[in-house]
Amino acid sequence: MTTSTYAAAGVRSADEMPSFGRALDVLRGTFAFPRRGRPIIEFGYYASVLDIGGGVGIAFSTDGVGTKLLVAQELSKYDTVGIDCVAMNANDVVCVGAEPLSMVDYIAVESVRGNQLAELAVGLAEGARQARISIPGGETAQVPEMLHSAANGEAFDLVGTCVGVVPTDKVVIGTHLMPGDVVVGFAASGIHSNGLTLARRVFQTEAGWSLNKYVPEFGRTLGEELLEPSRIYVDLALSLLANLDVKALAHITSDGLLNLRRVNAGVGFDIEYVPPPPPVFTLLQGLGRLPADEMYRVYNMGVGFCVVVPPTDVDRALQIGAEQGLEAWVLGHATRSPEKRVRVLPLGIEGTSAHFAPCP
Amino acid sequence: MTTSTYAAAGVRSADEMPSFGRALDVLRGTFAFPRRGRPIIEFGYYASVLDIGGGVGIAFSTDGVGTKLLVAQELSKYDTVGIDCVAMNANDVVCVGAEPLSMVDYIAVESVRGNQLAELAVGLAEGARQARISIPGGETAQVPEMLHSAANGEAFDLVGTCVGVVPTDKVVIGTHLMPGDVVVGFAASGIHSNGLTLARRVFQTEAGWSLNKYVPEFGRTLGEELLEPSRIYVDLALSLLANLDVKALAHITSDGLLNLRRVNAGVGFDIEYVPPPPPVFTLLQGLGRLPADEMYRVYNMGVGFCVVVPPTDVDRALQIGAEQGLEAWVLGHATRSPEKRVRVLPLGIEGTSAHFAPCP
Repeated sequence: MTTSTYAAAGVRSADEMPSFGRALDVLRGTFAFPRRGRPIIEFGYYASVLDIGGGVGIAFSTDGVGTKLLVAQELSKYDTVGIDCVAMNANDVVCVGAEPLSMVDYIAVESVRGNQLAELAVGLAEGARQARISIPGGETAQVPEMLHSAANGEAFDLVGTCVGVVPTDKVVIGTHLMPGDVVVGFAASGIHSNGLTLARRVFQTEAGWSLNKYVPEFGRTLGEELLEPSRIYVDLALSLLANLDVKALAHITSDGLLNLRRVNAGVGFDIEYVPPPPPVFTLLQGLGRLPADEMYRVYNMGVGFCVVVPPTDVDRALQIGAEQGLEAWVLGHATRSPEKRVRVLPLGIEGTSAHFAPCP
Repeated sequence: MTTSTYAAAGVRSADEMPSFGRALDVLRGTFAFPRRGRPIIEFGYYASVLDIGGGVGIAFSTDGVGTKLLVAQELSKYDTVGIDCVAMNANDVVCVGAEPLSMVDYIAVESVRGNQLAELAVGLAEGARQARISIPGGETAQVPEMLHSAANGEAFDLVGTCVGVVPTDKVVIGTHLMPGDVVVGFAASGIHSNGLTLARRVFQTEAGWSLNKYVPEFGRTLGEELLEPSRIYVDLALSLLANLDVKALAHITSDGLLNLRRVNAGVGFDIEYVPPPPPVFTLLQGLGRLPADEMYRVYNMGVGFCVVVPPTDVDRALQIGAEQGLEAWVLGHATRSPEKRVRVLPLGIEGTSAHFAPCP
């Protein structure tokens, strides 16, 4: 039996990156440089927040769509990955309690010929509509020498930076979490924009599936399934923030439920229930013979966003999910844990860093 | 005689991009989406500005370093291009009258092994120091399949997004320009971060020069000259804004002095003086047999930043430049011109779009 690990598929996580740690040490020194508008939270949360005075915080965050773009490129289908770009950024900004307002995009292309840029814009605009943000600027760079040349001449990269506002006394980074607070999870729309390197390797390289292969379990082709746009949780999160005592929000991207650890409190989480994973994950796990700890670290496994609220707010959180048409589940609760241990009890795995391991 | 044009070197300008125009049309529709914080200026200025209420505007802009990164990659020298990244973004944000506060970066790498990330951070931090901004977050993506594989395994891209603040009644987009207002230019530090595709083609491919070739005119190697960090004009611009009746600011990037056209007024500019171009430009022009209109469209030609002020403020503008240790020149003046014609009279060229042509 061979096992594809995420690392073997060419993507390593943060704790395997000493260079990354040194970079952060250098950049931490910049916090003291500004005349004003200094950052008020550390590295490692979903977005940065600047205190510009008068109680106003500017939240902003940058992220790219990653290798999901290679699926779009292979299919020459460009009108949805802009939604992913907005999702990756706006979902992060809302996680610190901010209202996303606007995004700029950076598009690197091999060539500006054809409809690629205009189609990317269609997706960006649809994402902006869903997140209720504007896209008032951006940069398009034609840098064919920097991109891996594609057979169709349409290699590209797509990155966004989302800006929002949050009252400085309303920044949400989990500071008020208490053991016993409850984790409610909300359904993902699919694989979202993480783990595509591993998914492409398993489905396409190892199993030899074409993106055009019809997969009965998906009710559509592999390419259509992998390109399903990431869900945008901005409306959901703003409604939760407006109505509940939100202790923490978590955008479940790479590192899966370990994203719950991105909180400013000595708490961990015991996950007592996980919903049945959608077919894209079960097929992927079977074909790639991937262990559960790998799957739950790399993928959202069907849960794209979480909120942590006091027990008294759980029913209302589920109801707000329902109002948004989102399946929602009570997943578990916060525990006293200085090392921020996340245990996924149904799977017998736990993690206190960017990895899961079997529970002792 | 062969002529290398910028287009032939693989980079086309905006008016050759119908797809780009269609993309902007689609994205313009997003201006109406936000609940609040709508953009208050159109596409085409140096940064976007959101009105978040209370007279506060958030200015932000995104840009990459482009193919200057290929020079860094070829030399495995990564500790200065971060300065370029800050320069490209902070210089843009200050051009709308805003005070840059902070930047996030996006780094796409072929591999996270080695010192590359940490060295990139050193440049970013030095740029942040010069611009007096923080870098409180960013994204590092290991996407080897998306980047043009480099011999040394160190292919990468580097992009930033800078955020600043500006009182909404102090936004500078040239609205109050009058014929007779004076253009003062400030010295560039070198080629900055534009036109490297053409420069690499002429110096390296056509002339066959190695980056390690010592060039007497530069007093250093070709690689050292091309990697000279872009100048950061934030302190200069903030001092001009604080002390003068600044009508417009222009960051001279691609399109050269045609950047002066990015103003909200029916004025053009007659440039009556240009300083002697630094050796990097004269050598490049000679080796590539490039026409002056091409050179002045693609390159800063020694003038990296301009301010437009009333005649009464010219002496003080020159003095502020001197206080910053920057050579400065009176270049010309604004003219009545609904089509925003920029004429560079010493060269007999003019432009009303992204191109120069001979004056009639």
